[in-house]
Amino acid sequence: MKSSVLLIHCPDQPGLVFKITQVVYRHNLNIISNGEFVERNFNHFFMRTEFSGAFPQQEFLEELRNSLPAAAVIRLNERQKRNICILATKEHHCLSDLLIRHAFQELDANIQCVISNYQNLEDLTNKFSVPFHFISHEGKSREEHEARVLDAIKGYAPEFLVLAKYMRILTPKFIDQFENRIINIHHSFLPAFIGANPYNQAYERGVKIIGATAHFVNSNLDEGPIIAQSVIPVAHTHSAKEMAQAGRDVEKIVLARSLKLVFNDQLFVYRNKTIIFD
Amino acid sequence: MKSSVLLIHCPDQPGLVFKITQVVYRHNLNIISNGEFVERNFNHFFMRTEFSGAFPQQEFLEELRNSLPAAAVIRLNERQKRNICILATKEHHCLSDLLIRHAFQELDANIQCVISNYQNLEDLTNKFSVPFHFISHEGKSREEHEARVLDAIKGYAPEFLVLAKYMRILTPKFIDQFENRIINIHHSFLPAFIGANPYNQAYERGVKIIGATAHFVNSNLDEGPIIAQSVIPVAHTHSAKEMAQAGRDVEKIVLARSLKLVFNDQLFVYRNKTIIFD
Amino acid sequence: MKSSVLLIHCPDQPGLVFKITQVVYRHNLNIISNGEFVERNFNHFFMRTEFSGAFPQQEFLEELRNSLPAAAVIRLNERQKRNICILATKEHHCLSDLLIRHAFQELDANIQCVISNYQNLEDLTNKFSVPFHFISHEGKSREEHEARVLDAIKGYAPEFLVLAKYMRILTPKFIDQFENRIINIHHSFLPAFIGANPYNQAYERGVKIIGATAHFVNSNLDEGPIIAQSVIPVAHTHSAKEMAQAGRDVEKIVLARSLKLVFNDQLFVYRNKTIIFD
Amino acid sequence: MKSSVLLIHCPDQPGLVFKITQVVYRHNLNIISNGEFVERNFNHFFMRTEFSGAFPQQEFLEELRNSLPAAAVIRLNERQKRNICILATKEHHCLSDLLIRHAFQELDANIQCVISNYQNLEDLTNKFSVPFHFISHEGKSREEHEARVLDAIKGYAPEFLVLAKYMRILTPKFIDQFENRIINIHHSFLPAFIGANPYNQAYERGVKIIGATAHFVNSNLDEGPIIAQSVIPVAHTHSAKEMAQAGRDVEKIVLARSLKLVFNDQLFVYRNKTIIFD
Repeated sequence: MKSSVLLIHCPDQPGLVFKITQVVYRHNLNIISNGEFVERNFNHFFMRTEFSGAFPQQEFLEELRNSLPAAAVIRLNERQKRNICILATKEHHCLSDLLIRHAFQELDANIQCVISNYQNLEDLTNKFSVPFHFISHEGKSREEHEARVLDAIKGYAPEFLVLAKYMRILTPKFIDQFENRIINIHHSFLPAFIGANPYNQAYERGVKIIGATAHFVNSNLDEGPIIAQSVIPVAHTHSAKEMAQAGRDVEKIVLARSLKLVFNDQLFVYRNKTIIFD
Repeated sequence: MKSSVLLIHCPDQPGLVFKITQVVYRHNLNIISNGEFVERNFNHFFMRTEFSGAFPQQEFLEELRNSLPAAAVIRLNERQKRNICILATKEHHCLSDLLIRHAFQELDANIQCVISNYQNLEDLTNKFSVPFHFISHEGKSREEHEARVLDAIKGYAPEFLVLAKYMRILTPKFIDQFENRIINIHHSFLPAFIGANPYNQAYERGVKIIGATAHFVNSNLDEGPIIAQSVIPVAHTHSAKEMAQAGRDVEKIVLARSLKLVFNDQLFVYRNKTIIFD
Repeated sequence: MKSSVLLIHCPDQPGLVFKITQVVYRHNLNIISNGEFVERNFNHFFMRTEFSGAFPQQEFLEELRNSLPAAAVIRLNERQKRNICILATKEHHCLSDLLIRHAFQELDANIQCVISNYQNLEDLTNKFSVPFHFISHEGKSREEHEARVLDAIKGYAPEFLVLAKYMRILTPKFIDQFENRIINIHHSFLPAFIGANPYNQAYERGVKIIGATAHFVNSNLDEGPIIAQSVIPVAHTHSAKEMAQAGRDVEKIVLARSLKLVFNDQLFVYRNKTIIFD
Repeated sequence: MKSSVLLIHCPDQPGLVFKITQVVYRHNLNIISNGEFVERNFNHFFMRTEFSGAFPQQEFLEELRNSLPAAAVIRLNERQKRNICILATKEHHCLSDLLIRHAFQELDANIQCVISNYQNLEDLTNKFSVPFHFISHEGKSREEHEARVLDAIKGYAPEFLVLAKYMRILTPKFIDQFENRIINIHHSFLPAFIGANPYNQAYERGVKIIGATAHFVNSNLDEGPIIAQSVIPVAHTHSAKEMAQAGRDVEKIVLARSLKLVFNDQLFVYRNKTIIFD
């Protein structure tokens, strides 16, 4: 039996858990997991409930709305594979990792297509029978290129866009069409080394640890809500290139981990931060 | 206002969260944090609720008992400093760390006394105005020594015993008097290197990572429920002695972290494992 | 210009570094990196020197032999891609990762073939144009099966065998033919959870950290020299299956990291431990 | 027998290791450990040799100078406890940790005194019979306060100053008197969260990992050469205050680890980075 995920957030007040679980109980649903969190700075309540069982969806949602404050945001998702498009540039490691997981049914998503501004990942993508769209940025303005990318995407109507080392900066206009639906992997431990060439920066600074950050993309570059981060130790013996090599393994694992959280509805985005139920 | 922690576990059935939060709501209590977990192998339900507010304790507990299955185990604790006795042997690092935290009000506990089978930590303990009991094991049977230790402890009636590198094996008879109330720090990443001299074992085996494990003590040596673990990388360049030195820093931090979880009622022990709400 | 790696180990005595670098200096070679280590328990000296430059190899080695104690073991390798055969069973994640790295020239090795006792990884392997040999173990004795595997391997004369989640135990007879040339990835943080189903064992034990270990295979199962280890935190919320999922990401990264060390001659094996120059 | 540490760096050229070890060999010294590194961007050579044995120091150094390029920087230190002064403000955790290690002979240093601009750590310091100087900054200009601090320090002529959560910014004039001799612990994973209140910044940014950085102090605040870094995971459930609490354990361990490297002459500082031999 399919399971459903109920995501509710609203200003905190007494009795919210009671009121929500009352509705769930009334419908005789079987709670698989339940998590709540109250953000104390803004006194904001978050609850994620995963349950199985048959129920009249409209009625269920209406009962919830009647029980909860008007400001409550209620989302109800069936656990199912999400449709995604992947954007890449030249580096293969994140795309490879996602294509492999996809091929072995480990991604919780259907990769509808791969879009790249270079051609070198076309062969790889084809091996896995995923459509590949080469959309060069050369000779095009940023807006023109984005318009072409958007055209390619629109046919698929994906739920999420995954930037698997897509090295082009997206315009706010583009981003606004996919609020909290674009996931990027940044090749550094944000907020350290914002911007380009973080491994060169890390090498220059002589850091002893490097990392990677998966985050939602918003209109402030590299400043969207962080989903997952991980690090590895480095030493003075590593060149910037070797740091980048080591970093790629971190990047692909962190990206995959963040996608698992996103695709399984395990997080909320609130005031540029993520609340995660793992 | 003081906060209270409600800990409930019982076989899972629908509606448990609803029934518990109903009682909390009825008493108009303010939930600070709430966590549930259902262990799926045995279908066992765990819930930890921290709340503030005044309430009639007897009535509250009775209502809970009436709402919940007869098998439910219900515990209600006020958040308060726990009384503890520390047992040590010769090594200072865990004891030092606890005495310092205690002196600066960071331990969530009152250290009532330190008991050791050696005298070398007496000066240290005295610096912090904590009573020190030297109870040598020499010339005594294990049972005689334990009886003397127990005598010293009994006067304090501590809630928990902390073994801060106490290198004597306790008898089941002793342990049974403090079920899930003795916390030990084991100088290895259990279950690797059970027993004595784990750093020598780690060195001999040529491992690349060493660790430490804080656990409750039960009658099977080194096999009680694990509370916290941590690791650090080591290399072939480290001698067994250097591994031990590096390991000590891990040990003291892991022990302190585990005590925070225990003293704040952030965990359940179930079937030799811990369920942790952090 | 190609670089060469000189690996020397022998009982320690004064002047070894001087004597070795004297020969290198005399041939006007350019040292790229140089590392020494003296194991203090057995007073054994290890030195790894990577250098570039043209030189008469025979003469160079003879001069070294004349300078060093008779017991010195001297190896001189050109930095080049190693020929390897991969053995796998049903799980794809380590094999996938190696095939991808291989396809993008990141492996420091030529994968000559993949051998498996199941067929489900054949399609994957074919995508990357690597020969796949299906050698079922069914209806065969261990010896018969191994003989067949060995036949397949022999045609390739590989330098190393990589066990990428190969779930069959190899006989000492087989292993002895590839001393320190078989690398295995063990799905646990050895020496914890030796043997089968380590994730089930980890789950049952309630550990808070799991890991993976890459090691050379010797005739004592799971007891060969450890090359690399890594860990990730887990929690009571993870099932044994989820621990295994999380563990797979660690396994593939640790295996790749260990192969980099092996294929680049960055390690010595001595008394069942590895001395690593990274 | 005491051991000595020889530290040499100079522009790279062929034969340096040979020339240095020749001198060591000629004096019949027993090498305990030996490490070299060539920085490839600037082609700069570093070598650290630890050895034991009696030798004529002047003659030894002269032979080295005659063998090596004129630009070579040669340092020869006996392994011995270093004299240090600790500067602190209000937070105790790093100071406590150092006082404890000092009391148990684990610091490789003599703490000559503690200087603070507050009085609250005086009792702690006194417990360990270390002189405490209270030098308030109130009503003084930065320069006046620094002059007073400098006066207190000068009497001790320490080799190193350790800033154990000293929350005052030092002037370049002060810093220049102690080039690469002031070690600071910064409560964040530099270069993330430079400046004040890093835990608040980390909380606001919603990072999933926090860290601490030990570094030499130069005249660019928070930008001196990094010696050691470490991190711990955090979650949305942690307040900025809880992140700070967790961070303190990382800070004290990282500071102690960095001091071990500094006091044992295990590092070079070169172009604002550290070369570490561990």
